[in-house]
Amino acid sequence: MSLRRILNVVGLLQVFMGLSMVLAGLVSLFYRDGDTVGIFLASVLTSAVGLVTYRRTRFKGDILPREGFAIVTLAWTAAAFFGALPFLFTGTIQGFIPAWFESMSGFSTTGATIFTDIEALPHGVLFWRSFTQWLGGMGIIVLAIAILPYLGVGGMQLFKAEVPGPTPERLRPRITQTAKLLWLVYLGLTALEALLLMLGGMDLFDASTHSLATMATGGFSPKNASIAHFESPYIHYVIILFMYLAGVNFALHFKAAAGRLDYFKDHEWRFYTGLLLGAAVLLMVLNLAGGSYPLSLAGVEHALRDGLFQSVSIGTTTGFVTADYELWVPGAIMVLFILFFTGGMAGSTGGGPKAVRILLLLQQTAKEMRKHLHPRAVLLIRVGRRVVKEDVLANVLGFVILYALLFIAGATALALLGVDFVTALGASAATVGNIGPGLGAVGPTDNYGWMSDSALVVMSFLMLVGRLEIYTVLLLFHPETWRKA
Amino acid sequence: MSLRRILNVVGLLQVFMGLSMVLAGLVSLFYRDGDTVGIFLASVLTSAVGLVTYRRTRFKGDILPREGFAIVTLAWTAAAFFGALPFLFTGTIQGFIPAWFESMSGFSTTGATIFTDIEALPHGVLFWRSFTQWLGGMGIIVLAIAILPYLGVGGMQLFKAEVPGPTPERLRPRITQTAKLLWLVYLGLTALEALLLMLGGMDLFDASTHSLATMATGGFSPKNASIAHFESPYIHYVIILFMYLAGVNFALHFKAAAGRLDYFKDHEWRFYTGLLLGAAVLLMVLNLAGGSYPLSLAGVEHALRDGLFQSVSIGTTTGFVTADYELWVPGAIMVLFILFFTGGMAGSTGGGPKAVRILLLLQQTAKEMRKHLHPRAVLLIRVGRRVVKEDVLANVLGFVILYALLFIAGATALALLGVDFVTALGASAATVGNIGPGLGAVGPTDNYGWMSDSALVVMSFLMLVGRLEIYTVLLLFHPETWRKA
Repeated sequence: MSLRRILNVVGLLQVFMGLSMVLAGLVSLFYRDGDTVGIFLASVLTSAVGLVTYRRTRFKGDILPREGFAIVTLAWTAAAFFGALPFLFTGTIQGFIPAWFESMSGFSTTGATIFTDIEALPHGVLFWRSFTQWLGGMGIIVLAIAILPYLGVGGMQLFKAEVPGPTPERLRPRITQTAKLLWLVYLGLTALEALLLMLGGMDLFDASTHSLATMATGGFSPKNASIAHFESPYIHYVIILFMYLAGVNFALHFKAAAGRLDYFKDHEWRFYTGLLLGAAVLLMVLNLAGGSYPLSLAGVEHALRDGLFQSVSIGTTTGFVTADYELWVPGAIMVLFILFFTGGMAGSTGGGPKAVRILLLLQQTAKEMRKHLHPRAVLLIRVGRRVVKEDVLANVLGFVILYALLFIAGATALALLGVDFVTALGASAATVGNIGPGLGAVGPTDNYGWMSDSALVVMSFLMLVGRLEIYTVLLLFHPETWRKA
Repeated sequence: MSLRRILNVVGLLQVFMGLSMVLAGLVSLFYRDGDTVGIFLASVLTSAVGLVTYRRTRFKGDILPREGFAIVTLAWTAAAFFGALPFLFTGTIQGFIPAWFESMSGFSTTGATIFTDIEALPHGVLFWRSFTQWLGGMGIIVLAIAILPYLGVGGMQLFKAEVPGPTPERLRPRITQTAKLLWLVYLGLTALEALLLMLGGMDLFDASTHSLATMATGGFSPKNASIAHFESPYIHYVIILFMYLAGVNFALHFKAAAGRLDYFKDHEWRFYTGLLLGAAVLLMVLNLAGGSYPLSLAGVEHALRDGLFQSVSIGTTTGFVTADYELWVPGAIMVLFILFFTGGMAGSTGGGPKAVRILLLLQQTAKEMRKHLHPRAVLLIRVGRRVVKEDVLANVLGFVILYALLFIAGATALALLGVDFVTALGASAATVGNIGPGLGAVGPTDNYGWMSDSALVVMSFLMLVGRLEIYTVLLLFHPETWRKA
């Protein structure tokens, strides 16, 4: 481990982060809400710190594999740290911990907010909030790899540590090209969604901020009531579609853009799509049977739309809401709670354990059952035609167990800090999974502003660990990481 | 699969079951509460059905491996069915489903009851209730193997399917001898506990019923307030000790009786004991800090005793209570909820996933983390000096995942039947784990009597599947079990 190499890359990314605040500054200039000075100050300070760090730590040679973990974790921690400055310098958040929480919630695409009255915030800050989600969605490091040829050599290590899923797919032999293509698809889909939302009557500001948060599966909305603010079914359906697309492996989108529709051939895609559709229909039936919606044609459409919206929003870990699901029948709440633990596809911007891991988990369980019937048989697990290797399987099972342990540890930590049982379970699941709204006192109509600083610190950690898929962060706490080779 | 062979063994066990009711009949004769006729009627009917079935299905040859699953599952289902008759024939329970639930709760050593006023029940019925737990604790089939030489040949299959833990240990080369020794230790410990309880002032009836339920990690008490009924700290400590011993692998007790104290050498024992002690101390500290107990010497002793009692009771899946833990601080509730998912040692009478499986799960997680640091290293998992084989590990992980899925499916089924979120989670965890009291409306001061028949059926299934460690029952639903070889 060389602190010099680690700080060098992190410093460079800081410059980047500072420059990205300029965009929020320009938005604030346009609206003149009084937040311009604060945002530009944050931008200059962030870039300056980054530039000094970068120039003072220049090195020759390559990044080592285990340094990748440290770089990615430190870069994200720093991003959340400096990303908090616009909130602090504009006076929209008092106190560093809540500001850091809001910033981490943005970058990790969680979407849990501490604000009670979001609509009172100045436009520049609102834009920055949504923009952190967009940067965190496809990944700040993937973006850096795409733009900076200098990261090309050690880039694969960083790429692996940041991109969600067991084995990230390369679209091109060179990692910088892969990163460029991913960001291009991401940018294109975001622009398309904004356009479609504007066609539905949204203004440019609402359309762009919501698109940034949708494609990142983030969930920050500039509206207090989230998407329930908008009454138009068209807007709901557009957002359902793009939340769904954001949860799909971006490699499939890239292939589709190149004319190859491989969606149906992909077994993870089938599982992901089937799960969300099945849950949506189940939610609709339960809510109609439970009397939450009238049994008219309009009522059925509304129940289906709300079922689809909440199922896709929670299932992709976005966290937008159109209905207060805590008022639904217990069965519907339980269905949503299960979706808290699935997540998008690998290679998407979604959080959670990812659909492919759940699929492999179920297949492993079925295999162990068959093994009791045929003790000597050699049983293989396949996804499509490809046999899943034993070590990939062990990795996936290890991940899911670690995820469960982290969820339990998080809930226990929150309960020890005095948070009630249901809220502790809901908040832990919602932050580890980068979802946003949880259950109990952090439900779809609540926010996280009432929680103590210590609880916010716990959840900031959970959001970071969840976004970077656990291993990347936790390995830094492993003593062997720091042992000399 | 031969239905003839299956029914033959099940029929024989029925005769047994009928005869065991005679003991409850004799108790009822002594107290003359008016339940004698009902109990003897149930006894005669059960024995008669068993005898006819047994005589009409005689066969030559051996039991096939996969018939073992069917025999054990069917025998337990029948035991719960006929075990419900004393409740029905004495008029203490109206309706078959609740009676079946109470009986299954007994045999599966769960201890969830539908009765609101337990103390109003006649003594014969109360004794039968406790006796079902004792029979179910060490296992009705292990008992049959111990007594009936005829089961010696196919016995190992049945033994494996009933005894908790990944790989049951043989104490003697012959399975009948092993079964005999296990029951002998079980009987001895039960008698010892009854004696110690009587020394503390309990009468013979209370001492024997509580001992039967303790050593089975069952949890049925003839008192409405469970062990909180008794104010004597001595009685609390005796029951803590024997709940703890009931959760230890009985092979270790047998070795101790033979003069070899192998407890400390056993890694599962260390983990099990450390976990319960750690949780108890944590509960004490949390409850003292939370102000649930006064900060005097007596208060600290009481907090420690209640912490120990609830930690050992939930951790061994017994389910006796001395304190309403739902009134404790959120952190303490969360600690107990984690203990809902550990269970006793393998080869004990405790339910749950078992300590050894949790231990292996944690070791597997640690191994996967190290694998990220040393991708090419061959990492082995050891329990003590013995290396755990890959297929045992896969089996254990498969089991834990299946357990988690069953818990989730159970909670979802209950929620779909209208049970609220927390109660559904608590009831599912408490029945799959054979614990008894749960959370919410099935907490330590509540009972299951208010639940609908459909919810009771769901939970009866969960209790059976939990007691027989999932595979035994679920394999019966696998199509390949029924395919001809």
